[in-house]
Formats: sequence, structure tokens, C-alpha cells
Amino acid sequence: MSEAFRVGLLGHGTVGSAFDELLAERADAIAASSGRKPEISGVLTRSRGSFDDILEGADAIVELIGGLEPARDYTLRALEAGKAVVTANKQLLSQHGDELFAAARRTGAQYRYEAAVAGVVPVIRVMRESFAGAHIEKVHGIVNGTTNYILTEMARTGASYADALARAQELGYAEADPSEDVSGKDAAAKMSILARLAFHTSVHLDKVPYQGVEEITPDDIDYAKEFGLVLKLLGVAERLDGGISVRVFPCFLYEGHPLASVVGPFNAVTLESPAITEITLSGPGAGGLVTASAVLGDVVSVMSSSGMQLEQIEQLETVPGEEVESAFYLHLEVADRPGVLAEIAQILGDNAVSVKSVVQKGLGENARLVMVVHPVVEGHFMKAVELISRLDLLRAAPRTIRVIEEEFVG
Amino acid sequence: MSEAFRVGLLGHGTVGSAFDELLAERADAIAASSGRKPEISGVLTRSRGSFDDILEGADAIVELIGGLEPARDYTLRALEAGKAVVTANKQLLSQHGDELFAAARRTGAQYRYEAAVAGVVPVIRVMRESFAGAHIEKVHGIVNGTTNYILTEMARTGASYADALARAQELGYAEADPSEDVSGKDAAAKMSILARLAFHTSVHLDKVPYQGVEEITPDDIDYAKEFGLVLKLLGVAERLDGGISVRVFPCFLYEGHPLASVVGPFNAVTLESPAITEITLSGPGAGGLVTASAVLGDVVSVMSSSGMQLEQIEQLETVPGEEVESAFYLHLEVADRPGVLAEIAQILGDNAVSVKSVVQKGLGENARLVMVVHPVVEGHFMKAVELISRLDLLRAAPRTIRVIEEEFVG
Repeated sequence: MSEAFRVGLLGHGTVGSAFDELLAERADAIAASSGRKPEISGVLTRSRGSFDDILEGADAIVELIGGLEPARDYTLRALEAGKAVVTANKQLLSQHGDELFAAARRTGAQYRYEAAVAGVVPVIRVMRESFAGAHIEKVHGIVNGTTNYILTEMARTGASYADALARAQELGYAEADPSEDVSGKDAAAKMSILARLAFHTSVHLDKVPYQGVEEITPDDIDYAKEFGLVLKLLGVAERLDGGISVRVFPCFLYEGHPLASVVGPFNAVTLESPAITEITLSGPGAGGLVTASAVLGDVVSVMSSSGMQLEQIEQLETVPGEEVESAFYLHLEVADRPGVLAEIAQILGDNAVSVKSVVQKGLGENARLVMVVHPVVEGHFMKAVELISRLDLLRAAPRTIRVIEEEFVG
Repeated sequence: MSEAFRVGLLGHGTVGSAFDELLAERADAIAASSGRKPEISGVLTRSRGSFDDILEGADAIVELIGGLEPARDYTLRALEAGKAVVTANKQLLSQHGDELFAAARRTGAQYRYEAAVAGVVPVIRVMRESFAGAHIEKVHGIVNGTTNYILTEMARTGASYADALARAQELGYAEADPSEDVSGKDAAAKMSILARLAFHTSVHLDKVPYQGVEEITPDDIDYAKEFGLVLKLLGVAERLDGGISVRVFPCFLYEGHPLASVVGPFNAVTLESPAITEITLSGPGAGGLVTASAVLGDVVSVMSSSGMQLEQIEQLETVPGEEVESAFYLHLEVADRPGVLAEIAQILGDNAVSVKSVVQKGLGENARLVMVVHPVVEGHFMKAVELISRLDLLRAAPRTIRVIEEEFVG
């Protein structure tokens, strides 16, 4: 047996302590298969440890502090010293990725971050290794377990957003302050990381528009069920003519779509590439042990890998959202009188919006039109909605949610 | 740029030529990220090339001949010479795995086989790397695209098995002689490979009982729909008290199960481990380009890896099928007279079989009982079915199909 593989651990919160335990538990099995036994050579917390000493005495650093500083400073110094770094820090990667990856490229240090996206679902590894050299056209998926749990609960029980959130908090699927998750910002950070890897381009979190689930009503979920639609919060990163688009938004899927059956706090990501058509990976998205397990997988990779080449980054343009095509669900509370549908259909038609299906619900004070329109340039659709919203036959602001039309093709 | 990475290619059929083209197309991109440019240094076909020369001049061998010999001989000689081998040959791995992996362990040569199971779905890589050191409890999934296409068509159109098979052949999803696929033997070979990797045990193809889809009738699919069940051909490898069980059988799943939405020629595999709960990977299962793409991924891994340790293999016992627990669907064509259900229920109860749901269909000559029973030791269930089959109130032999009860838990 060769000497131990020394891991310097930064942070000892939920994930850090789960990692610490898991490493101890698995060290012998890893030693049996890799030839070296991993061990924690130092732990840095707010109250104890010196980063310099830990760095000096470690073969690799595991950064589980989270947040921007001092995580950024420590990571940079480790990479500059040529030490491998494994992290679960999506904030850091999505906001300082350029600087950190540049440092890793400079010294040849490994920088691994499987745990930062989709928990233990090995999307980073699969993109990096199985799709090596492949042209990835699109990455999309459910990358936030909190919101997927909330939407699943709303669909299952008819609960309001507030009640479903409270239930998620009870079960530990949502934090006391859930704003990062429910606003879509957490998902946006993850999509920025996935887009960087997929398209070899720098995608700062600021370039990822996001929309969360706070405005979703049980009504929307109910009506859409009649069209065979299921609501999910999706992250979508895709190549388009002229660049890329990376966005997070609530979205309806048809029931046959592979992401439609992903329920509760699970995550799932679909990768699309011409040679491969598509691969979908799904599994639990979060939790201390799950994240620790992903971190440990990266540590094992660091131990057994001769190094990793990081792609050169180019700068692709971000296509403005209003130029992207989407299908939409449109919910209108309307006056219950003849000619309403004709008036609305006229505006839609004038703006190149083509209706796929429409139902009229309720009577009198409760009359509403619920429709799904075919894919259309978003700017055109938004203009039509803007014009419709000015009609005096409307009793409330129009509600719109995107729809992914494709089904799971065989 | 360092020198080229020389790949000796054995076999130049559908997959071999697709691999040849794909490698040429991606060589520059791979060189950019790995530092070495892969190139084909020699090709062996039935009519040209010398294996010895190709081995001598190659850094790695890609074996796409298929079948047992001479693939076995070439692979063994390459591994014994310390050369990495990448293969898509499931027959070879499932029947001569012990010998081949032993040779690889002896010389430290890499032996990679992602393309042998589930096409481009990276289940081998994920098990080997993301689950490094983890205890895998169960691997199950849809590992044959031909039969999944056939079952999907039968469910979608009500077609007979023969018609669905003919359609699969038209579309190139089934071969002229489909027996390996439809009998379940192809899936059994893949499960033997997955079980070896999951449980670090030798599992020869002979130890994997399999059952195919030839006997499935549209009736079974139809009736089961009323219970919310979808039929799939599943491979299941699991740890049980006293050993492991590796089997292939047609099986009903509830619609919410993640494998239920896998349609057409797609494959999907679910891995279960305590720390990770479960991960599901899905994608296209076959096709020249898809397989070639998986082979190329392995070649890139060989290029960038310092070597791979192969687990020591122990020998776990295979638990006899009749000791395994399963839920079952049971279809009985019965006489339409009072007391029939009571008589059958009595036999089931006497054998510890508990009915979950039952419907009576048809009248007179068409009367039948269709039921789903709770999980039960298979030997007990089979004994009950044997007793029922002797009753003179039966108009045809009982039909049984296993049912997986679990839904996708959040």
C-alpha cells in the first residue's frame, strides 16, 4: 500500500461532516480499488484550523464552506499551488468561474464540482467524459429539488404555493429562507455551470434570466392537466442561431416527456447531441449525504486521474430571450359575452401566434379562456399578450407559462 | 502536441466503420482537450490485416468483431501485452469475463466496455466512478431496445407481438433473426456484466435465467392498463439475504415508475445504493453511431487515465428464483359460474398469496379473472398457480407476469 491520500477539508457544516464520516466509512474500499487510502489531513472551520497549514499538508482540498468569500480566495490559492480542488459551491462557480478555471488551466490542477449541480446525478462527469469531443446542442432539466417538490405537492394535493412551501420546509426540502430556491436563482447558477461545460463558453450567473415558482397558482396546474400537461421548473441551455440561450422558467411538459415523471425533490438533466440523440440522468438532488457522496466521487477521480485538461473557453453570444421560440400556455379571465374569443384570436393571429388548443372554463364572473399556442418567437407572443391585456374584456392580467412540446421520441 | 494515440481497430462492420468515421471527425477536438490526437493505426477485417502487426503498432485495441472467437483470443493477447482494450462485445464479457478481467488485473491493462451495455447510456462509467466505494444494492432497467420498441408498439397500437416485431424489423430496430433480443438472452448478457461490476462477483451468463417477450399478448397489456400498469422487459440484479439474484423477465410497472416512461428503442438503468438512494440513466440503446460514440468515450478515457484498478472478484451465491419475492399479475380464463373466485381465492390464501386487486372481465365463454397480488415468495405463488391450473373451471393455462410495486419516491 502506498502512502495515504491527504484531503484538506474546508468547512464542517452539514455536508462537510457528512463527507468526513462517509470518507472514513469508505476509505478501505477506496484503498482496495485505487491503491491509496484517503484520509482527512486537516479541517478548517470558522473557529479552528489554518488554511495555509491545511494546504501545505494536503494532496487535495475539498471546499465545502459555500458562498463567495473566503471560498474564492482559498480555492484560488489551492489551484495556484497546483493542488486539486473538489467543491460543491455553485455560487462561486457561477460567479467566479472564469478566474478559477483560468487558474486551474495555468497550473494543471484538477478542479472538480460534480456536487455543485444536481446532487449525486453525475451530469458533470458524463458531459466531461462520455461526451468528450461531442457537440452538445442542448442541456435541460430539473436542477432544483425544492421547487420540484413544491410543484409536485401542488399537483398532487391541489395545495397553494404557500402551503406546499410550508410542507417542504417541514420535511427539510426547503430552507427557512427559501428565496434562492423558489426564485429560480439556485437553478440559474447551476445552469450557468452546465452551460459553461456544454458549450465551452463563459456564462456568468448575471447572463441567466430566471423566473421562479412563487406566482404559480393551483388553477394553472389544474387547467393544464386537461391538456395532459405537467408543470416543472426547468433550466434550459441551448445553442441557437447566433449563440446560446440559458434560462430558468416554470414550464409545462406533456405527460410522456421523460422529465414529467421526475417527482418530489428529485433532479434530472437531459443532454442532447447529434451522435447520441439524448441521455437523461435523474436522482436525488440534494441532502447532506447525497452531496457528500458526489464530493467523494470527485475525490476518488482526483486520486485516480493523471490530471484533467480544461477546455479553452470562447465567448458565445447570448441570444435575447424575446428572439427564442417557445410554445405557451395562456390563461385569460374574460367577460362572458359573444365575440370575446374572436377578438383575442384576431390579436394572436396578427402577431403570428397560432393556437393549438383552447378551452373555455366557467361562466359569468368565472369565465376564462385557457389555451396552448404553438411555438412562436417569444417577442411576438409577448406583444400579443400585451395587446390582449389592454382589452376591457379582461378581468385580470393574462397569465402565461411556457410549454415544451416535444415528447419522448423513440 | 505530443505524438498520436494509436488505435488498432478489430472489425469494420456497422459499428467499426461508424467508429472509424467518428474518430476522424472528432480527432482534433479530442486532441485539443487531451493533448494527444487519436488515429487509427491499423484495421483488421476478415480479409485484411494481421493481428500481430496491429497489436505491435497500437497504444490501444478497439475490439468490434463481436462473438466469442477470435475476439476472445485477440482480447486476451492484447491485455496480456499490457495494451488497453475497448470493446462493445457483451457475449464475450458475459461468458469469458473471469479470464479476461484476470488478464487485465495481471498486467494492469485497461479493459473498458461502456458500449457493451445500454449503448451510450454511461452506466458502466457511473458505476465505476460516481459510485466508487459505494455499496450498490440493486441495478435494474431496460437494457434491450428491440424488445422495448416491440412492447411500446403493442401498448400504443394494440398490435400483436408478431406485427410489432415485423414493424421493428422494418425500422431496423430488430434483426432479421431477432431471437437473441426477443428471448431475453441479449438482456441477460448485459445484466451479467452489470451484476459483475455492481457486486464484484463473477456472474456467468449461464447464471442469469431469462424470459423474453414472445409469449406476451395484447390482452395482457390491455387488462393491465386498467390497473395503471405498463409492461417492460426488465433486467434485475439485486443483493438478497444470502447472495444475489440476476434475472431478466417481462414485468409490469406502475405508470409513475421512472422506467415506465422509457419508450421505443430506448434503454434505461436505475442504480440503487443507500447513500445515494437511486440514479436513473436513460438514452438510446443501440445503433451504429450510438455504439461508436460510447466506444470513443472509452478510448478518450483510456487516453487520459493513468490506468484503472479492477476490483477483486469474490463469488457470491445466486439465490434460486423461487426464493425471491415478487408481486404478480395473474390472468385466468375461467368458467362463468358462482364460486369460482372463492375457489381460487382459497388456493391463493392457502399459499400465502394476498390479492391486491382483481377484476372480472367478460361473460360466458369470455369470462376471465385478472388480478394483481402483493409481493410473495415466488415459489409459493408458483405452487398456487400450479394448483389453480389443475382446476376444471379453467379454460386455458394461467398467465403470470411479474409486477414491480414501487413508485418513483421523492
